[in-house]
Amino acid sequence: MTRIAARIAIMGVAGRMGRTLVAAVEQDPDATLAGGIVEPGSSLVGADIGELAGQGRLGISTAESLADIVDDFDVLIDFTTPQVTLANLAFCSAHDKRIVIGTTGLNDDQLAELDGYQDRVPMVFAPNMSVGVNLTLKLLETAAKALGDEGYDIEVIEAHHRHKVDAPSGTALKMGEVVADTLGRTLKEDGVFAREGQCGPRTDKEIGFATVRAGDIVGEHTVMFATEGERIEITHKASSRMTFAKGAVRAARWVASREAGRYDMQDVLGLA
Amino acid sequence: MTRIAARIAIMGVAGRMGRTLVAAVEQDPDATLAGGIVEPGSSLVGADIGELAGQGRLGISTAESLADIVDDFDVLIDFTTPQVTLANLAFCSAHDKRIVIGTTGLNDDQLAELDGYQDRVPMVFAPNMSVGVNLTLKLLETAAKALGDEGYDIEVIEAHHRHKVDAPSGTALKMGEVVADTLGRTLKEDGVFAREGQCGPRTDKEIGFATVRAGDIVGEHTVMFATEGERIEITHKASSRMTFAKGAVRAARWVASREAGRYDMQDVLGLA
Amino acid sequence: MTRIAARIAIMGVAGRMGRTLVAAVEQDPDATLAGGIVEPGSSLVGADIGELAGQGRLGISTAESLADIVDDFDVLIDFTTPQVTLANLAFCSAHDKRIVIGTTGLNDDQLAELDGYQDRVPMVFAPNMSVGVNLTLKLLETAAKALGDEGYDIEVIEAHHRHKVDAPSGTALKMGEVVADTLGRTLKEDGVFAREGQCGPRTDKEIGFATVRAGDIVGEHTVMFATEGERIEITHKASSRMTFAKGAVRAARWVASREAGRYDMQDVLGLA
Amino acid sequence: MTRIAARIAIMGVAGRMGRTLVAAVEQDPDATLAGGIVEPGSSLVGADIGELAGQGRLGISTAESLADIVDDFDVLIDFTTPQVTLANLAFCSAHDKRIVIGTTGLNDDQLAELDGYQDRVPMVFAPNMSVGVNLTLKLLETAAKALGDEGYDIEVIEAHHRHKVDAPSGTALKMGEVVADTLGRTLKEDGVFAREGQCGPRTDKEIGFATVRAGDIVGEHTVMFATEGERIEITHKASSRMTFAKGAVRAARWVASREAGRYDMQDVLGLA
Repeated sequence: MTRIAARIAIMGVAGRMGRTLVAAVEQDPDATLAGGIVEPGSSLVGADIGELAGQGRLGISTAESLADIVDDFDVLIDFTTPQVTLANLAFCSAHDKRIVIGTTGLNDDQLAELDGYQDRVPMVFAPNMSVGVNLTLKLLETAAKALGDEGYDIEVIEAHHRHKVDAPSGTALKMGEVVADTLGRTLKEDGVFAREGQCGPRTDKEIGFATVRAGDIVGEHTVMFATEGERIEITHKASSRMTFAKGAVRAARWVASREAGRYDMQDVLGLA
Repeated sequence: MTRIAARIAIMGVAGRMGRTLVAAVEQDPDATLAGGIVEPGSSLVGADIGELAGQGRLGISTAESLADIVDDFDVLIDFTTPQVTLANLAFCSAHDKRIVIGTTGLNDDQLAELDGYQDRVPMVFAPNMSVGVNLTLKLLETAAKALGDEGYDIEVIEAHHRHKVDAPSGTALKMGEVVADTLGRTLKEDGVFAREGQCGPRTDKEIGFATVRAGDIVGEHTVMFATEGERIEITHKASSRMTFAKGAVRAARWVASREAGRYDMQDVLGLA
Repeated sequence: MTRIAARIAIMGVAGRMGRTLVAAVEQDPDATLAGGIVEPGSSLVGADIGELAGQGRLGISTAESLADIVDDFDVLIDFTTPQVTLANLAFCSAHDKRIVIGTTGLNDDQLAELDGYQDRVPMVFAPNMSVGVNLTLKLLETAAKALGDEGYDIEVIEAHHRHKVDAPSGTALKMGEVVADTLGRTLKEDGVFAREGQCGPRTDKEIGFATVRAGDIVGEHTVMFATEGERIEITHKASSRMTFAKGAVRAARWVASREAGRYDMQDVLGLA
Repeated sequence: MTRIAARIAIMGVAGRMGRTLVAAVEQDPDATLAGGIVEPGSSLVGADIGELAGQGRLGISTAESLADIVDDFDVLIDFTTPQVTLANLAFCSAHDKRIVIGTTGLNDDQLAELDGYQDRVPMVFAPNMSVGVNLTLKLLETAAKALGDEGYDIEVIEAHHRHKVDAPSGTALKMGEVVADTLGRTLKEDGVFAREGQCGPRTDKEIGFATVRAGDIVGEHTVMFATEGERIEITHKASSRMTFAKGAVRAARWVASREAGRYDMQDVLGLA
């Protein structure tokens, strides 16, 4: 079987996420790097994308705008800002391109505008592109269904680097929510986010969270289901932003052969 | 909703597994302890089952044979020997009882004899009754489907007590087989059971095993899926034989309302 | 070299800790079981200690009082109540015996009375007899000295069973205190026992605690030292009360050849 | 107290280790970046060291030789090749400089030449500069002394990335050796590097190794001491080459105020 590699362009290729995306595309035998956009007027216009990313010379120069490479690519990967992303959606709609969007922070108006393109543009939109995190959410649903009403205590333990300002992490909360939804509970009622002092024995329904902040930990999450005699632990450990870049490239390959529509990572992974 | 508790009898109630089963039935609000069998002529005939199990007086005495308690129970739990189990299957068939069988070591003839009852007796037969282990097998299948061809390295790490004589454990092999089957691989070709010396870089398809033997570890298994940027780890830790006893009681409750047939733990857990 | 085994008597041999102590003495080639005391008038007076403990017949019967076995033992192991322990100390003082005390809950008067015997009785008194926990405290001191002022973040993570009513555990606090003392910090000022919501980035000096409560976890403690590029984790996992029983037997062997004095587990382990 | 920051020069500042060393010096309040050497004739001569390392402009340009910056630095950090390192030692001897050497692969003649400088040059020479690994070796010695003859089983578990060609890792072997030496054992006699099939129960003296190879794992090592009732685990996890860079900078600070002599990381950490 011949697989035709998706031709991928990267928005903001000079940034840290952009450079990581270059590496992720290069590693994927079913993806081809087709171009990369830098800010108009940047001193890096025309630089070799591979050298920029520390991957060695690739023979592809950075461009200033999508229009410059319109014939070269099939799918755009975009981890930028809401304004830039919406402009790129318009471009994709006009030129029959596909897009993978990792941009966060869209407000309600911007989300509505994005949704307006779903009849014309095949797009994957996901706040967390990590394949492992998205798979983990599915595994948690399966586990909660099988164990939830059988006396298993559920705890979410997460660890992040010293600079993180909130606790628990958004991903830890999402994991807890998936479990809670599956079991007809809510984090509002059943989430226990801190234990200190004489807090009494654990209740059956509570979903506990424990938070560690230390060093350079990129992000580790474990959900534990424990009862007398056994524990099941489902763990995700991110070691670099490659986890997001690889998920984005996988999404790009997947969306390259889809009809118009707004998809998420559960669709990409076949877990929906 | 009223739930009617399954009335459960325990074969070999004086043994270590039998005593643990008493504790597991007592903990389960949907199960009722209905009787326990000890060896004919034992000094423990007539002893209180609860006191025998260190659970305090329950007001139920041990019996010498199933016939003595034939009107008292619905489901028998049997972790004994192949001969005893087959005799009990005949009894269950004759008296319209159900049975949960954790007995191991049946040869082909004995398995055929057991199968002969599946049209008449609702039975759960599983070599490993642990809910967690059986759930883990399902999670591994889901994970392997989502990750297998995407450059994730798969490793199985297991730890058991110092007395275990074989490596890797049967459960570790089973986990590896589930992953291999899902991915169209085989442990015979792709299993790597030891690494020592100059063994070269890892290959893409290999499924590695690492074995730890130390102290009193009841049984811990982790399957790791790792790629650049992330790891997913699915872990089961057994802390006592309660894991098997609780699974057996759950199977007993489940089979109490089934038609004749031979079921396994995947059926009980709704994962089949 | 011939090693003479210490002859050990066990107070409260019919209780759960007492039975575990029997097993621990039986496993130790340098210790001999010399007797066990049950409550006066108990139906278990005269029972075989081995059978009582599930260890098989040992040919030693339980006794009602230390006076009954005064010529048989060298060291008493006592995990009972303050009153019983103080009475036993008087007995040991009068009859030239040694004692290992795992009893907790002594008030100040009782502690003073206990101290009054230190010129006459060789005694080991320790609220936590676990060899591993006591070793871990020493390792933490060494690690804190080497790492403390070099930008390592320190976190204590502990997990216990669902019935535990306080958080963090006393052992977790003790671990944190050892680290804090070594670094000239205090848990009062620098301990962070819960993180929730927008709590801001981690400070350099804080010692964080994370608490997990689930299932039947006997007790697990990890102290993490993390900085950019690496983590060191020192972990203790208790799997049964054998950890305390084995520590007590080791203490009994050690104190068998000591002068009068009050010792703790750091002395026994040669870490003081 | 005023602390005077050691002025540090970095050999090979354009390489991956060199760039990481720049970041490590910049993070250390007690160290000052004084210069960096690139290969003579390189296009990077004169580039800003900070920009080269992705740290932002620092106002220090790269140089072609140590002679060009001889008045600017106190300590040289050198992770290069044996030939380059020996030439640098001659320079340091002539100009009263100190040196931290992370270079590996010196043959016996080269080691003898290096030793020849120990009366004239204060030098730290260590094949593994990681503070955590070196501390871990000390912790293992302490643990082995306290536990070794008391029935604790010892296992070394290590995990590295998929490209590593040998097993177990050199660091895992070093950890095993420290434990073996402390206990009067040898890895040659007591090391068990693979378990497969019917290998029988564990022996008392064996030191087991388990190897995991997967994904991008930089390097994780755990030494487990396990007995009935408890486990102690001492773990080191490297997350980036910063662990080596930070150790080198710490060594540079330390050696800045020493007499001539050849030191290792145990000296630097005060653990010798």
